[in-house]
Amino acid sequence: MKVVALAGGVGGAKLVDGLAQCVQPENLTVIVNTGDDFHHFGLHISPDLDTICYTLAGLANPETGWGRAGDTWVVMGEIERLGGPTWFRLGDRDLATHLERTRRLQQGERLSEVVTAFCQAWGVKVKVLPMSDDPVSTVVLTKEGIELGFQDYFVARQCQPEVRGFRFVGSETAQPTPGVLEALRRADLVVICPSNPWVSIGPILALPGVRETLMHKVVVAVSPLVGGQALKGPAAKMFRELGWQPSPLAIAHFYQPLLRGILVDVSDAVWADEIRRLSIIPEVTDIVMRNIQDRIRLARKVIAFGQKVVETSAL
Amino acid sequence: MKVVALAGGVGGAKLVDGLAQCVQPENLTVIVNTGDDFHHFGLHISPDLDTICYTLAGLANPETGWGRAGDTWVVMGEIERLGGPTWFRLGDRDLATHLERTRRLQQGERLSEVVTAFCQAWGVKVKVLPMSDDPVSTVVLTKEGIELGFQDYFVARQCQPEVRGFRFVGSETAQPTPGVLEALRRADLVVICPSNPWVSIGPILALPGVRETLMHKVVVAVSPLVGGQALKGPAAKMFRELGWQPSPLAIAHFYQPLLRGILVDVSDAVWADEIRRLSIIPEVTDIVMRNIQDRIRLARKVIAFGQKVVETSAL
Repeated sequence: MKVVALAGGVGGAKLVDGLAQCVQPENLTVIVNTGDDFHHFGLHISPDLDTICYTLAGLANPETGWGRAGDTWVVMGEIERLGGPTWFRLGDRDLATHLERTRRLQQGERLSEVVTAFCQAWGVKVKVLPMSDDPVSTVVLTKEGIELGFQDYFVARQCQPEVRGFRFVGSETAQPTPGVLEALRRADLVVICPSNPWVSIGPILALPGVRETLMHKVVVAVSPLVGGQALKGPAAKMFRELGWQPSPLAIAHFYQPLLRGILVDVSDAVWADEIRRLSIIPEVTDIVMRNIQDRIRLARKVIAFGQKVVETSAL
Repeated sequence: MKVVALAGGVGGAKLVDGLAQCVQPENLTVIVNTGDDFHHFGLHISPDLDTICYTLAGLANPETGWGRAGDTWVVMGEIERLGGPTWFRLGDRDLATHLERTRRLQQGERLSEVVTAFCQAWGVKVKVLPMSDDPVSTVVLTKEGIELGFQDYFVARQCQPEVRGFRFVGSETAQPTPGVLEALRRADLVVICPSNPWVSIGPILALPGVRETLMHKVVVAVSPLVGGQALKGPAAKMFRELGWQPSPLAIAHFYQPLLRGILVDVSDAVWADEIRRLSIIPEVTDIVMRNIQDRIRLARKVIAFGQKVVETSAL
């Protein structure tokens, strides 16, 4: 079964890591949000791509979910001494990724080529595709009427401002990375990872051709919300601020009409009936990934559930 | 006595360090070559400025002359793992300088403002001025008819190609940094440090107004050549390849008609008479700086000699 996963940051990386353990590499493609990409110190930083690739390579910091395991902070310490900004934490090992990516991009390589080269260097066999080689920038519209770049909102302002909406600047003209639409067309199953729908999956869906292609595919999601909370990040807060009760039902609504099935946590079993009324199949299971065993178990569950939905769809 | 020093890399940094110990900070201005500046990994790198500032701050690596003392190489190791270029060695602490400089320049600060901020952070009291806030790039013309960027020639190709000349791209339109011509006009003594005349001092002299201003000043040089050799770098090789016998006499010729006096090494006493015939006063002394005591001793000698030349010129 050919599987394509759409993913953003930490939660997505965990499920992708599980999927990589139970799907043959040639049958798994990961399409990663680049709407969070930004420039800092002149460097091109791709937070979600790095989180996914570091996790797949076994290089990720297990405590933070972002950055490199065992990283050091020599450069950051010196930047602080010079009075430079330290709100975006750049470890020494992590910095090498940004420097070499920036160098390659300036030499004319496409972002997807850079990712492929890095994955090769890190021994990652799964195909990882940035959603686009063209710049797309997620902008957060706040209650105060200010538009914030995503990292300004997410890191510098710690998701404090109340959100009113989002814009994905560049998404109308950006093209999906070569291979993205092809992978989706060939996929037997598309998995939307437990990533933030608004700012991690939304930018991918905003690209020309993605929604249209997904309309013909079997798409299942893993809820990023458990018991009304996001396990990490501002997803629940965003749903509330935009007038939705944060729940798997809200997730199901969000992905309508693309979605055929959704895995929800046992603590959210109460939402199963209402989800079913949207013609979306709910599957109740333990979706919290505390360790690598959880990742693999959930990934197997996703594949089994996906197969069930594929068979149901074929009837 | 108000002193202005023109300086390039390691040799210049040593003498400037000595001058800083025997001239009041408010009476010493250092004008530094930026013709070696280049971009690497998207960062603006200013090798000579950093060497001068690190040395004045007591942060320089005493073994290499460039980079930071006790620096670590975590970033470089990871860049190597990614297959990135390692020919230009960037230590972790050193990298912080390049990152923060690049960030400030991209925010619209002028290079001279960045240098002032860094000197303040590092406790450097001497006024350090980049020769220009505008880009000037030293290009090396080689025997094979190829033009090499300076770092390509100097670091990547280890000064191997035979030189035929130099171009300072941008120097016709670049303006000296605000304060450069003023400092030169107010100077009682201008010291040309023992830096490479062709590629360290040459770019400074090529800027509009610098030569004209120096024509009215008392200018003394410290020979960068000792016994026909440069203590560091390709100066002697360049003189030979351009058809000059490398000696203090060649240095004196190079700086004619600006130069009033030159300090030459005891091993080069033989050149004193010929230098005098150019109407340039030679002063024979030990000019090799092995340690901090040597730097201070030579700096005192330069100041004393300069005073003598000033008095001679006033007669």
